[in-house]
Amino acid sequence: MSRLAGFRLLATAGRTQIASRRFLSSIKSNPPMSFPCIDRLESRQRDLMAGPEPTYEKVVTGYSLYKHKQPFVCDHGGVLPQFDIAYETWGTLNSDRSNAIMVHTGLSGSSHAHSHDKNMKPGWWEKFIGPGRALDTNKFFVICTNVLGGCYGSTGPGSVDPRTGERYATTFPLLTVNDMVRAQFHLLDDMGISRLYASVGASMGGMQSLCAAALFPERVGRLVSISACARSHPYSIALRFAQRQALMADPNFNRGFYYDGVQPHVGMKLARAVATVTYRSGPEWELRFGRRRRAPEQPPALCPDFLIETYLDHQSERFCLQYDANSLLYVSKAMDMFDISQSVTQRLQTQREQAAASSSTPPAGTVCMHVNEQEAAGEASRAETSDEIMEDLVAGVKNAQQPALVLGVQSDILFPVKQQKEIADILRRAGNSKVTYYELDALYGHDTFLIDVVNVGAAIKGHLENA
Amino acid sequence: MSRLAGFRLLATAGRTQIASRRFLSSIKSNPPMSFPCIDRLESRQRDLMAGPEPTYEKVVTGYSLYKHKQPFVCDHGGVLPQFDIAYETWGTLNSDRSNAIMVHTGLSGSSHAHSHDKNMKPGWWEKFIGPGRALDTNKFFVICTNVLGGCYGSTGPGSVDPRTGERYATTFPLLTVNDMVRAQFHLLDDMGISRLYASVGASMGGMQSLCAAALFPERVGRLVSISACARSHPYSIALRFAQRQALMADPNFNRGFYYDGVQPHVGMKLARAVATVTYRSGPEWELRFGRRRRAPEQPPALCPDFLIETYLDHQSERFCLQYDANSLLYVSKAMDMFDISQSVTQRLQTQREQAAASSSTPPAGTVCMHVNEQEAAGEASRAETSDEIMEDLVAGVKNAQQPALVLGVQSDILFPVKQQKEIADILRRAGNSKVTYYELDALYGHDTFLIDVVNVGAAIKGHLENA
Repeated sequence: MSRLAGFRLLATAGRTQIASRRFLSSIKSNPPMSFPCIDRLESRQRDLMAGPEPTYEKVVTGYSLYKHKQPFVCDHGGVLPQFDIAYETWGTLNSDRSNAIMVHTGLSGSSHAHSHDKNMKPGWWEKFIGPGRALDTNKFFVICTNVLGGCYGSTGPGSVDPRTGERYATTFPLLTVNDMVRAQFHLLDDMGISRLYASVGASMGGMQSLCAAALFPERVGRLVSISACARSHPYSIALRFAQRQALMADPNFNRGFYYDGVQPHVGMKLARAVATVTYRSGPEWELRFGRRRRAPEQPPALCPDFLIETYLDHQSERFCLQYDANSLLYVSKAMDMFDISQSVTQRLQTQREQAAASSSTPPAGTVCMHVNEQEAAGEASRAETSDEIMEDLVAGVKNAQQPALVLGVQSDILFPVKQQKEIADILRRAGNSKVTYYELDALYGHDTFLIDVVNVGAAIKGHLENA
Repeated sequence: MSRLAGFRLLATAGRTQIASRRFLSSIKSNPPMSFPCIDRLESRQRDLMAGPEPTYEKVVTGYSLYKHKQPFVCDHGGVLPQFDIAYETWGTLNSDRSNAIMVHTGLSGSSHAHSHDKNMKPGWWEKFIGPGRALDTNKFFVICTNVLGGCYGSTGPGSVDPRTGERYATTFPLLTVNDMVRAQFHLLDDMGISRLYASVGASMGGMQSLCAAALFPERVGRLVSISACARSHPYSIALRFAQRQALMADPNFNRGFYYDGVQPHVGMKLARAVATVTYRSGPEWELRFGRRRRAPEQPPALCPDFLIETYLDHQSERFCLQYDANSLLYVSKAMDMFDISQSVTQRLQTQREQAAASSSTPPAGTVCMHVNEQEAAGEASRAETSDEIMEDLVAGVKNAQQPALVLGVQSDILFPVKQQKEIADILRRAGNSKVTYYELDALYGHDTFLIDVVNVGAAIKGHLENA
């Protein structure tokens, strides 16, 4: 049976429905619209019902695993009895272990930042890493991990809880960016690396860089933060809220317990479509797609029609089975909660210490927060003045005195340049005299850091190699 | 039975599931998350299954109806055997019928722009209309309609097709902004108004104003376009694409044939959440919500948690049963297709004329486009140079020589100021020497036109009353 015939067979139900409407339509004022985009969702649903294996687990291969055997207490008081971190490295660690650079990923990034013998596929920062490149593997030992909470080898909601033998799903504890960074430092301990030459990241990776530099200043030599922020702005929270709502509204989501059934592929596709709109900018799409249509000889349609629509449809279609929905929820929530303010850091540390001191199993139904944070949280949540917010942020980065590169992109709507200036500002006000601030007039919005190797790459290289 | 008890009853299924997980959780590493936002969606689904009546039909009352008894051929060749337009008026038509102003609405606007005896509820432009106000009812006769394709009294997909006795659903023909404007001019004909003093609109209303001024120049005395565009940009198409996909992915959508069942309330809620993010701007939310949380004494949650999230959740919750999903699809698609370029206007006119000349019922399955537009569309869809695009736009507005006010808002991401400048630019290049262009440094993004009566109102009043 040909592939086309297979598709026809799968699509039978939808086609029968359309056929019966066509029969009626001879008396209607107009024929019914066709909905090929819905036909495709239904067809994928049928495919997935036939084969329940999650596909995201096969997306990335060839990584190494660090296995942490001790319990790990999260900032919000949840506990992981043990965890794995998937990582990949490029270049050679020098004899005094002083040339290691940690590359932190964005939300859905894997450890596969660059190709290597065990996985020849190009990585997500392929052109930024290598001999002579921005992250020069002739000079540096580059490490990239899949974050805690991810689904590309590191422990996340799709992993098995050793205490039950079942996947965590939404019994996974709430995570923070600081939890991700602390897990990475456990890996570095295991590698015998006490101090990074530099901590480098963009988007959520920039949050991790800033967090590492501010909270572990003795372990970070230089800081690179690209298109990130010192605290998530309500607008970026709103954009991620829309994605999470789309995901959780999918009937297949089943409150996160979907691993034995069909993944919430429709919700994931919608979430990715919204995300892609926030990752790119208008100017690029104007040049690339303009108002051109996919099939100009066809009449306009409610399903994807303009090239920009088919592009978004294709992008989100590709992604929807490549990343675990629960990881998206947890990691995107960690981004929302990111705030480098001193008061927030102190509160989380208190919570973590209290949870670590408590030997009992957390009480049920408390949504992964097991200490009384009423007072502290009430304090942090009252309406603060801009001056108070700034003071708290400046205090939060007072130990980040490393040479720092802060880079923003003017067409970025998710992490606007205002937030980039804020990072540079608080570092400088905290006394850091080695802060470089660049603003790029680039076309690609937030995703510029993935694409613009000429401008972004050169800025990183200059910062890393400048004496 | 108390309201709370009723809610408990509705929520039983979800709670049982959670209760059984709680029992298990004593051996899990962490307790499961709670999902009150999903509980609410499920509760509303059960409510709606008990009462199938669409509620949007009751949202607006007290309008008048214009009944057009002749067939109306749409730009894309579809046909309406007849149509209604809901409208409301304020002020008094003068003896020579020269003081009428048409206010055009945005996507989901009703004719209820201002309160009156038959409907005392404040209208959507309550403070802009009235004695002495921006649209001064001591001087002007103000008319507002619900657009063709809407669901607040005018004929739309939720209306009954007189040829079948059933609701159109997605057998409704594809509409354009020009179709909406032509329907409004039929109403004006019926009122004996040959020429408007002014055509005023914001967002899609601005598209209608520009369309009216350019295509019916002899019928429009002055033009006001606020936060609109001369052609939809791929970025705004992308933002509406995400909304339509969310809507169509709702299993209740059923390809538009949901009127006898449950409305796609989940998809509508998601679509509105995305829309609200595009309607407002970051600066306002920073001031209004900052990073404050709904219940700071509670642990963080995956469901709405930050105030910005509960705000969006509440906004979209309110909307999801107040507007017909099919109207959203058709009207938002009309916005995507809007392009005042001469080549587009000419092509649509040719199509309409060919369809009108054809007496036969349109063939089934051709998605409401019944003429061969292959050549014309192919021409229009090739990649054009910026110069060609500008020339085509300038030619498209060559007859719009009325005094024109073009107003944009710097924090608008849906219709950015670049697009406002483009409108002013093409009008001026077409020889219009009476173009006023204002740019507002306002906080509210695209929605500024609904809120900022001081700045927007004054600009309109000055333009309308300036000799």
